[in-house]
Amino acid sequence: MTITSVKNETVKQLRRLRDRKARRETGLHLIEGERLVLDALKAGVVPDTIIIEEGKTHLEEAVSSFALPFINVSCNVLSACCDTETPQGILASVHTPDQSVPETYPDGLIVVLDAVQNSGNVGTVIRTADAMGASCIILGEGCADAFSPKALRAAMGSCYHIPIYAGTLVPELEKLKAQNFSLICGHLGGKEEFPEINRNCAVVIGNEGNGASEEVSSRCELVKLKMYGKAESLNASVAAGIFIYKIAEKLHSGD
Amino acid sequence: MTITSVKNETVKQLRRLRDRKARRETGLHLIEGERLVLDALKAGVVPDTIIIEEGKTHLEEAVSSFALPFINVSCNVLSACCDTETPQGILASVHTPDQSVPETYPDGLIVVLDAVQNSGNVGTVIRTADAMGASCIILGEGCADAFSPKALRAAMGSCYHIPIYAGTLVPELEKLKAQNFSLICGHLGGKEEFPEINRNCAVVIGNEGNGASEEVSSRCELVKLKMYGKAESLNASVAAGIFIYKIAEKLHSGD
Repeated sequence: MTITSVKNETVKQLRRLRDRKARRETGLHLIEGERLVLDALKAGVVPDTIIIEEGKTHLEEAVSSFALPFINVSCNVLSACCDTETPQGILASVHTPDQSVPETYPDGLIVVLDAVQNSGNVGTVIRTADAMGASCIILGEGCADAFSPKALRAAMGSCYHIPIYAGTLVPELEKLKAQNFSLICGHLGGKEEFPEINRNCAVVIGNEGNGASEEVSSRCELVKLKMYGKAESLNASVAAGIFIYKIAEKLHSGD
Repeated sequence: MTITSVKNETVKQLRRLRDRKARRETGLHLIEGERLVLDALKAGVVPDTIIIEEGKTHLEEAVSSFALPFINVSCNVLSACCDTETPQGILASVHTPDQSVPETYPDGLIVVLDAVQNSGNVGTVIRTADAMGASCIILGEGCADAFSPKALRAAMGSCYHIPIYAGTLVPELEKLKAQNFSLICGHLGGKEEFPEINRNCAVVIGNEGNGASEEVSSRCELVKLKMYGKAESLNASVAAGIFIYKIAEKLHSGD
């Protein structure tokens, strides 16, 4: 049986998840496209509903290989659930990983976002943090949802590779300090030299327009990337990428 | 007099410039929004037509301070010319800087793009190159237009700060080699150590999905960014940002 109507109750439930509020209430979010859905299933994400466009037998086989059920839908139904303009045959609603902050943070590199508002930036920074071996991400107040379709696309699967915590930054930074983390914050008013850092280091990335808030930056060592040209600032994801790379390099070289 | 119809001949000419082909034929491109337009005028860009939404007297004054004429239009006419969903009162068509490759390249850091297809990435890399003091950019075959509305937004004015050349990469790389430039190319098959570089260095950034082409990469020293985590690759703009930063740092430290 193939669902062909967007008024079908299951389809309506899926479409609701395009809103952040519905995602928060249900604890579910959507994943679109062959690569992201299959990567998430491999990473152990628990699906609630999987829909596949009729006739896409290779996707049916791939999902069946996880011993998971799925529902066939018409192309228009899939499109109606998708955020992208060219849906790629499959969409799943899955259980969002628990984002409550831990009592104790894992050692190593931690990336902290302070009010990063653009979903693409949140996803891109999560991808970079994952590539550079960060142990987890902390999303502070005012950050975009890491599990929105746009953030998930930018993160390219990284949202399921490392823990993502959502919390209030001031107490979490205090917790990290008590655990002997160096706290480094990218800041236009900072020093142009990277400071000595501990084996454990958290790097704070601020808001796209305004940087990190006063209560956050006052708890950190402030560092400004050296710039040699005419542009006064960098794209937020690029600046975050350079910071995360530099600190990962320092941690791994034992500097 | 205020133009209120999108059928007006001037408005039609402006709207045509949203297509790359029309931009190439006319040698003009569009700039949208207060910040970008005024920055471009400050940078010495030569406008062809400037339109301002009726009632925006602060924009009229700003444009008049450059001793430039402008045309008043209604909100719907401005919207029809703009790429962004929330147009910010002003749009200009301006003469596109000459992009023909030079006989001799300037010393220092040069950023070369090989088939970077996404306009946002082209703009973001230009912004990073400008911030890191690059002397110019070379766009190879298959690159997105640096003067499209999306690329200009991502570049944040940097398209008018440094020369942007469009050419065929193989002869240009040979020219750079003859000028004693080190040629470094980001490549997944490269070494994880940054090589020794000359005082003049060109860094090549490849296509988002496929990297640099064989004929380009075979002319360069290949370098892979060290990654320590699970994500297999970085966002193209982020990877380019880290490369450009690292090389600028080396050039300025005299390593």
